[in-house]
Amino acid sequence: MKTECIRLDPTRGDVTLTTYLLQDSPELLAGKKRPAILVCPGGGYFNCSDREAEPIALRFAAMGYHSFVLRYSTYCEGGAFPDLSKPVTVKERDLHPAPLNDIGAAMQLLCTHSDEWLVDTDRIAVCGFSAGGHNAAMYATRWQEKGFPRPAAAILGYALTDYVFKHDFEARQEGSVTMFFHASDTAFLGTADPTEEALEDVSPARHVTKDTPPTFLWATAADELVPVQHSLLMAAALADARVPFEIHIFEKGKHGLSLADQASASALSECNPDAAGWTELAGKWLQKRFALPLPEKSAFEIMIENGGFPG
Amino acid sequence: MKTECIRLDPTRGDVTLTTYLLQDSPELLAGKKRPAILVCPGGGYFNCSDREAEPIALRFAAMGYHSFVLRYSTYCEGGAFPDLSKPVTVKERDLHPAPLNDIGAAMQLLCTHSDEWLVDTDRIAVCGFSAGGHNAAMYATRWQEKGFPRPAAAILGYALTDYVFKHDFEARQEGSVTMFFHASDTAFLGTADPTEEALEDVSPARHVTKDTPPTFLWATAADELVPVQHSLLMAAALADARVPFEIHIFEKGKHGLSLADQASASALSECNPDAAGWTELAGKWLQKRFALPLPEKSAFEIMIENGGFPG
Repeated sequence: MKTECIRLDPTRGDVTLTTYLLQDSPELLAGKKRPAILVCPGGGYFNCSDREAEPIALRFAAMGYHSFVLRYSTYCEGGAFPDLSKPVTVKERDLHPAPLNDIGAAMQLLCTHSDEWLVDTDRIAVCGFSAGGHNAAMYATRWQEKGFPRPAAAILGYALTDYVFKHDFEARQEGSVTMFFHASDTAFLGTADPTEEALEDVSPARHVTKDTPPTFLWATAADELVPVQHSLLMAAALADARVPFEIHIFEKGKHGLSLADQASASALSECNPDAAGWTELAGKWLQKRFALPLPEKSAFEIMIENGGFPG
Repeated sequence: MKTECIRLDPTRGDVTLTTYLLQDSPELLAGKKRPAILVCPGGGYFNCSDREAEPIALRFAAMGYHSFVLRYSTYCEGGAFPDLSKPVTVKERDLHPAPLNDIGAAMQLLCTHSDEWLVDTDRIAVCGFSAGGHNAAMYATRWQEKGFPRPAAAILGYALTDYVFKHDFEARQEGSVTMFFHASDTAFLGTADPTEEALEDVSPARHVTKDTPPTFLWATAADELVPVQHSLLMAAALADARVPFEIHIFEKGKHGLSLADQASASALSECNPDAAGWTELAGKWLQKRFALPLPEKSAFEIMIENGGFPG
C-alpha cells in the first residue's frame, strides 16, 4: 500500500488528498486498473474528522478498491475549534463552493495520475459522512455544471441533503444544537441567516437529475443532529429521477457513527452492531458496479491444464 | 497509515517485515496501544504469495488492528520458481528452522518498537495460510522452547499441521502434487525423504501444550492440496490440551482461497462467497480477546454533559 498525503492547494496545508493505493502484483490484478473510493469526512464544515477518514478508507481498501481521503476546506483550517459562545467570524476562503471545488480538484488529480496509480477513472465513487456527505452529494448532483469528472457512484452516510428542510426544522428547535448549526452555516455559507435561494442552491436533494450517479444511503432514525429526513428526501429525489439507489435506515444509533464499530470509535457509545452492518451492505451494492476485472481462471490453473507444475 | 518494508536479515533482501500501522488520533485511541496481527503468507516454502500478504493485512487493519506482513525465508528467495521437473538442490539458509526464527525476529521487532508503533505486545496474533499457516502454527507451539515473545492468538487458514500425516497421505497419492510436495520438503527440510523424527519435529499438531495460544482455524473440506485433516488434527490437539479454539470448515472451495473474495483473487475461481465468511468469523472471535481499549463515553459526550458545545 502506498500512503501519501498530497496538498491540493499550495496556499494552505489543511486541504489534502491522502492516498491508500493498493499494491499491484502479478498474482493479483497484474497491472489492470482498479475502481476507487474518494472519502469526505464530516465535521460540520468546521473540520474533517479523523474518525471518518482513515478507518473508512481502509474498509474500502480491504474490499480491493484504491481509496483516498479528501480533507476539504473547512472553517478551522486544521486548527482548533472556534469558541461557539461568541459570534463566528466569516472566513471567505472556506465558504461554499470551496469544499465542492476541492472534490473537483481531487477527482481531477485521480484522473491525472490514473496510469501511475492504476485508477479506473470510469469507476470512482464519492463517499461522505454528515457534512462530508453533503459535500459528496453536492458533487454527485452538480459535477456536470462545474465540468468536473463524472462520479460513478455516491455513498452517503447520515448526510445533510436539504438545507431548506434543515432551516425549517431548526426554526422549531431550541438550545445548543441550533447554536451549532448557526455557526456551521456561518462557516459554510457566510451567514447564519441565508436566503431561501442560497438554501435551495446548496440542497443536493433539490438538484438530482439523470446525471446523478447511482447512490447508496444509510442513516439512523434516532439521529438527533442530522434528522433522518435528509436521507429520505434524497432517496425520494433519486426515485423521482429514476436514478438507481439503495437506502438503509437503522432504528437506533446516534449521529456520527462512522463504521459504527471499534475501528472508528473513540468510545463504546460510538459502536452499534446493527448500524455497523452498513459497510457489508455497501460492499455488496458497490461490487455490482465496481467488480474487479478478474479472469475466470488463474494463471496457475491454466498452467496446470496445459501440463503441470512450473518448469 | 504508515507502511514501511523493513529488512529482517541484513544478508538478504527477501526476508522482510512490512508494517501497516494505523494512524493514531485524539479522536480515536489517543495514544493508547493497539493489538496487532502478524501475517505469514503461504507458498509451499518456495515463496510468500502476495495474495496472502497485503489483502490479509488490510482486512485486519480495517478491524482496527495494526498489521504486519512477514516475508520469511523461502527457497526462491524472492526470485523465480524452480524447475520442478529436475531435482531441487538444497539451499541451507532457507531450511527449517529459518522461517520459524524469522517469526521470532519479527515478534521481537514488534516488541522493540512497541512504544513508537503503539503495539500492545500482550496482544499480538500470529496468522498464516498454507505453509505460512504451518510456520505460524510452529511458532504458536514452539515459541517457549525458543525463548521468543508469547503470541496471544493464532489464526490458521488451510494450514499444514502434521507432516507425519502428510507423508502417509502422499504415499497413497500419485502425480504432480506428490512431485510438488517432494520439492517443497527439499526446500524446507533439506530432503525429499525426511526421517520420522524430522517429520514429527515439524508437526505443530503434535506439539500443542498449555502454552499454545487460543487458535482460530479455517479450511475447506474440498482442499485437494492440503487435506482438511491437517486442520482437524490441530483442532483435536487443541481440544486435548484444553486450549480455546474455534474451527470453521466450509464444504466447497479449493486450496489457497486467501480472503476468498475479489480483494485477494487473481481470478474468479479464487472467490467463494461461503468461505469468504471466515474473516467476519475471525473478526468476532478476535474481538473477544483483542477489543480495543475504548472508554464508555466520548470526550464530546462528556463535554456536552458538562455544559454544551466547545468554547
